[in-house]
This record gives sequence, C-alpha cells and structure tokens, in this order.
Amino acid sequence: MIETFGEIDPPQRLLMGPGPVNAHPRVLRAMSADLLGQFDPEMTAYMNEVMALYRPVFGTNNRWTFLVDGTARAGIEAALVSLVAPGDTVLVVNFGRFGLLLTEILGRIGARIETVEAPWGETVPLDAVAAAIERYGPKLVATIHGDTSTTMAQPLDGFGALCAAAGALSYVDATATIGGMEIAADRWGVDVVTGGLQKCLGGPSGSAPITISDRAATHIQRRKHVERGIRRDDIDDGDGLRIGSNYFDLAMVMDYWSEKRLNHHTEATTMLYGSRECARIMLQEGVEARYARHRASGAAMTAGLRAMGLTVFGDDRYRMTNVTAAFIPNGVDAETVRRRMREDFEIEIGTAFGPLAGKVWRFGAMGYNAMKHKVLLTLAALEAVLRAEGVVLPAGEAVPAALAAWDATR
Amino acid sequence: MIETFGEIDPPQRLLMGPGPVNAHPRVLRAMSADLLGQFDPEMTAYMNEVMALYRPVFGTNNRWTFLVDGTARAGIEAALVSLVAPGDTVLVVNFGRFGLLLTEILGRIGARIETVEAPWGETVPLDAVAAAIERYGPKLVATIHGDTSTTMAQPLDGFGALCAAAGALSYVDATATIGGMEIAADRWGVDVVTGGLQKCLGGPSGSAPITISDRAATHIQRRKHVERGIRRDDIDDGDGLRIGSNYFDLAMVMDYWSEKRLNHHTEATTMLYGSRECARIMLQEGVEARYARHRASGAAMTAGLRAMGLTVFGDDRYRMTNVTAAFIPNGVDAETVRRRMREDFEIEIGTAFGPLAGKVWRFGAMGYNAMKHKVLLTLAALEAVLRAEGVVLPAGEAVPAALAAWDATR
Repeated sequence: MIETFGEIDPPQRLLMGPGPVNAHPRVLRAMSADLLGQFDPEMTAYMNEVMALYRPVFGTNNRWTFLVDGTARAGIEAALVSLVAPGDTVLVVNFGRFGLLLTEILGRIGARIETVEAPWGETVPLDAVAAAIERYGPKLVATIHGDTSTTMAQPLDGFGALCAAAGALSYVDATATIGGMEIAADRWGVDVVTGGLQKCLGGPSGSAPITISDRAATHIQRRKHVERGIRRDDIDDGDGLRIGSNYFDLAMVMDYWSEKRLNHHTEATTMLYGSRECARIMLQEGVEARYARHRASGAAMTAGLRAMGLTVFGDDRYRMTNVTAAFIPNGVDAETVRRRMREDFEIEIGTAFGPLAGKVWRFGAMGYNAMKHKVLLTLAALEAVLRAEGVVLPAGEAVPAALAAWDATR
Repeated sequence: MIETFGEIDPPQRLLMGPGPVNAHPRVLRAMSADLLGQFDPEMTAYMNEVMALYRPVFGTNNRWTFLVDGTARAGIEAALVSLVAPGDTVLVVNFGRFGLLLTEILGRIGARIETVEAPWGETVPLDAVAAAIERYGPKLVATIHGDTSTTMAQPLDGFGALCAAAGALSYVDATATIGGMEIAADRWGVDVVTGGLQKCLGGPSGSAPITISDRAATHIQRRKHVERGIRRDDIDDGDGLRIGSNYFDLAMVMDYWSEKRLNHHTEATTMLYGSRECARIMLQEGVEARYARHRASGAAMTAGLRAMGLTVFGDDRYRMTNVTAAFIPNGVDAETVRRRMREDFEIEIGTAFGPLAGKVWRFGAMGYNAMKHKVLLTLAALEAVLRAEGVVLPAGEAVPAALAAWDATR
C-alpha cells in the first residue's frame, strides 16, 4: 500500500517574516482557473495583458516587460546570464546577502567581478559607485534595491544615468521591494529590473517579473541563438556570444512573448494567472496608496518594537519600509521566542543570515500583510511571548505606539 | 487611468493537443491553499511528502526525488548543467525535437556532443546506442523517453545498465510520458529522470519533478559550492568543478530539500501544493490503472482517426500511448480545421514542428483528458469539421471504432 498522505491543509498562519508572506485570496482564486493551450488566442492575450500590467508596477514604459518562469532567483540569473558574457567586467554594489548572491551567480557565468561595498546596515553612497565605475570600467553595474538580509534599501535615483554615462548597462534586483516600495525603472534609468511575487506583491513564489530597456534588449538579442528544432526563416541568430543558458536565454524568451510566439518553454499558466492578479490588485489599489500603506505598516512596526524597548537594526534613513530587524534581547533564546510565536499565536517571524544570524529577528509587513491589524497583532503577541520568557519590558506600550505611528503616516 | 483588464475567465476549452492539457480540478483546488513560511515545520513536512509521493511516480527508491522550480525545461537544464562540466563528452540519443533540445542545452554548457540518431517517426535501437557508447566513451548518455514532436517513445529497458557498464551516467527526459506511460527509473537503471506536470500528470506547467540516483548525487555533490552569504560549518564545498548555474545547482537544491534545509531559492509553495496533488491523484488511481487508461485512450484515438480514413504517423510498435499524430488530408487547410475545432467545439488540437510542420496534427489524451468521452468528443468534432471542409470520409465510423478499441484495451 502506497502512502498518499492527506489533503493539503496548512495551518492558517500569519507570515510576518521577511517573506514569503500570505497570498492575497484573490490571487489564489485566480490561480484556480483552468488552463489554456500555450498559443491559444486567449492565452496570448493574457500574456499581453501581463506585459501591460507590469509596466506601471515597474515604473516603466519598456516594451519588454514580462515573466520568467521560476522563483525570483530565476529572474536574477536570467538577467545576468543574458546580459553578461564570460570575461565581462561587472561591478556589484553590495550591501548584504543578496549582493553576495549576485557575485555568486556572476562567478559561475565567468564574469570578472569587482565590488563596491557597504557594511551590513548601511547602503553605498552614489559617489562611491561613481568612483568604482571610473576605476573598473564595467560593462554592467548590478545591485539590489532592498536587501532583506540587512533591511536596507539602496537609493537609486541617478544610478542608471551614472552607469549609462560610463557606457555600462545597469541591473537592479527588486525582489524584496516590488509592490511595496516604489520601483521607478525609467526614472532611475536602470536597464533591467527583476522581482518576485512572494513579498510585497502578495502572491506565491514561482514567477519572476522582469523589465528590460530597449538598449538592453538590443544587447541581449545580439546574442540570440534559435534552437535547431524550431528554426524559422523570419528569425535570425545574433552575432554576439551565445547566452550560456537555454532556459534563461532572454532573447528566446522575448521571441516567445512577442508576436513571433516562437516556442520556448511551456508558459507556467497558473503562475501567470497569479502574477496577473497580483498586478491587478496593486493597480486597482493605486501604486501610491500601496506604497503609503507599506510605509505606514513599517513605521508602525518600528515604533512598536522601539516602544517595547527593542533596538532596531540599521540606518533609519535607508531602512526598507516593509521589513524591520530588531536585536534579540540579551539572555533570550531567539528560537524559543519564534517557536512560541508560531505555536501559540500562529505568527511567523524571521531569523537572519550571516553576520546578523542569532543577533536579530526580522519582522515583515508585506503585500496582503502590510495592514494595521496584522502589525498590531504581531506586536501584542511578541510582547506577551517576551514577557513570558522573562524579558523586562514596558507593558502595553507597543500597540499604542504602533497605532500612533500608523495614524501619523496615513 | 491605468487599465487593469477583467477577472481571469478563460473559456472552458478541452485541450487535446500534445500538452499542456487541462488540469485535474483537485490540483487547482489544492493550489488555492494559503502559503507557509519556507522553513515552517508544516512546509518542510510537505516537502518530505512530495519526495515520498514522487518515488513511485518515477518507479524508484532514490532518496533524491524532489522538484525543480520551473517548467519541465528547467528540470532538463538543471540535470544537464549539474551532471556535465565543460569539455565532458555527452552522447545524445536523438529521435526528435526534444533530443535536439538536449544538444542545444549541452552546447551552451560547453559539452562535447556526440549523437546517435533515428529518423523522425522511429526510435534508436539499443545496439546502436551500445555501439555509439563504445565509439565515443561518453561521461553521460542523455535521451528522451517520449518525444511529442514525433510521438515516439524510446524503449529504455536495459538502457541504464548499458551506460553504467561503460562507466557513463545516464539521463532521461520523461516530460511527455510521466504519469501516463510507465517510468521505471530503477528497472531502467537510469541515473537521472526529469518530468513536468502539464501533460500526463494533469497539472499546470511550472514545476519539474526530478529523481537522482545515489551515484549521480555523489557526482553532483562533488561540485557543490555554497554561497558566501549562507556558509555554515557543517557544509563543505566539493572538490569538483563548480556547477555553471546557481539556480540549477542541484547540489545546493539537494541541501535545501535535505535535513540541512540550507537556504537556496524560496520554494514555489503553490506549485509544490499542485505537484503534491498530482502525485496523490495518480497514486490513488494506481499507477498500473493509470497507464492502462492512457493506453486505452491512445488506442481509441488511433482507431478513430484510422476509421476516419486518416493515416497515423510513425512506427506503431514505438508510438507513445498518450499522443497520436495523423497526416493532414490533401487539400485541407490545417489551420482552418484547428480554428473551427477551437471556435465551434472549444477543442484544441496540436500543430507540429520541424519536418512534420504543416504535415500532421497531433492529438493528445493525457492525464485528466485521457478519458473515453473526451476522445470520442474530439473524434466526433473532427469528423464534422473535416466534412464541413469538404473532405470525403466514411461517415460515422470513427466513434464506434474508438469505442471498440477502448473496450478491447480495458
């Protein structure tokens, strides 16, 4: 007898860590629609709608705005492997774990990697970026918008222009901020931006929205190499070095998303339905209102944690609005607190990586969870757990402080 | 005013092409469950259940049986880039478009590619494979189980032993057959097999089940390279050449799916829920019963097409049970027929690639659509459309012939 386990039945848990977070119910409902053939006219119409819906999400008019079929990390690798050839010099603007991830991916591509860094908890000043560009002459400058490992958001106004002036392309990983903090691909002048659904867009992991400037698209298409099994007279190979991945070959993926509809992978239809609904919800709320809601949630969480006597990590000027790290009080077992939060309150809060591992908890308020009541419930629960664990703290201060901050920010 | 389009509302279309096909409603319902944190105990329990559920699906006891987060093509690339280093000789057993795809992916990895081929519509005899192994001394032999481009299924009993005896690893892409024709990874002696959900497993594209023998896992783990941002004292790098992709680094993905739970990508939770339900449905039906259902559906489709006077493509001895190609009658506009099938009957049938483009239609009966009534409806609709298009054919013969074939096979 083969074990088939029970029906899927996860606990109703409130996910207040750095992501993934709970999906908006509308997104999950949209994903229950039945499938379509990948070249059926209704399917290709949905693909075109997704392209249109994600342009305002990215703050862009880029024609090439679509989905990579994989998690946010797939979007990052697709961007880098399509933009960078072995031996190209790439400057990584690194201020946390996800900056390191860029170097790890680039190393496998065979790039020459240079970095300009900030300590965890800070960001990299634009003049340091400019100096590094001048020093290294990179073909690409790559960075992270919000790095959840440090809770810092790199200021990006002027970033793209700086790169373009030096003849470099620019890439930003916006996985942790898209849908929660403003992404302004065009105003930033950035060539390629990628994201994911599982944080501020309020969907499940597994689809990576991407936007590509015409300049970068031209660069990528020069590296096009059409599979022998599907060659057509109307589509030529480029004269550039073939992209090192087939799945992540954005030149081919663009042909799939264009009127050419050249077969590549089989589009992940259900994830596309979900991605579409994430963007619809965001645009119906209004992008400004949505960013304001995340700002208010983050301000409330921060104020509540501080009112509880906890010390918030990182430079206030550059903290992400949607995730907040607080130092674990001395003498407290961090994992016991996380377990009691989960078991007694069905609330998940986050651990940390690298230099912050064991030092801070991370509290997210993202997407469908960037709401007043969810922040207040998290703070009330945390206060109760910390008191039960013997932490001496001001009783009953966190919730009113959070409420006041919420109201002041709205 | 930003356009946000309407709610997702695809037509209720019967997808009888070579895939994707309609998802089983239970799969879509399972995917509407809310999300969990990626290291929550309930989530990791679901991951372990998925590993257990896919072992009988693959016909294996392999410990390393899990999901790659992407479409079926992502599973193929993950397997190849993790198994093959630049300069390695790989023998591709090629009898269609998807064999060509293997060579395309391997070319980008920098492999030395040798092939042993069969014309479209045939398969490669095992003694030809043996001779090619002897001639080229490959490190890996890679092939396709069922290639939908030709509707042929390569016989694989003895294949793995042949490779192992020559010191080669073996890989099989079973995307088009998994869940519909028997996959016997252990009996075949094959090291790595990958699949997808969107055909005979009756789910949406976007998750790629994979199984890896201990021998192949050891080979892959020697190439492990842990990201700097998440290094831990209990996990060492291997001494082999670093895998050329981060996202597809199966050594890291195995650490994520193991008790180590080393962070890699954020698991695509909703796709995992769907993958889990696909396997549960299959195992509850019984793998033998499921294969028999696909055989009966394919036999019925084939008999019906022949009774209509159409000529079925390819060698009967090796045809896949779940997809059937038939030549387009002379003087008929193939796309007009497909459009009338879609617009008048809401039934999708498939086109073809490469040497068969414009010559055949492809009819699938896969997963939730490998059912008597769906085959009969497709045949009845096709007969009506062909008659309307002026094709002279025996009237009313297809359905009874299909019914008789169904009954004879059940």
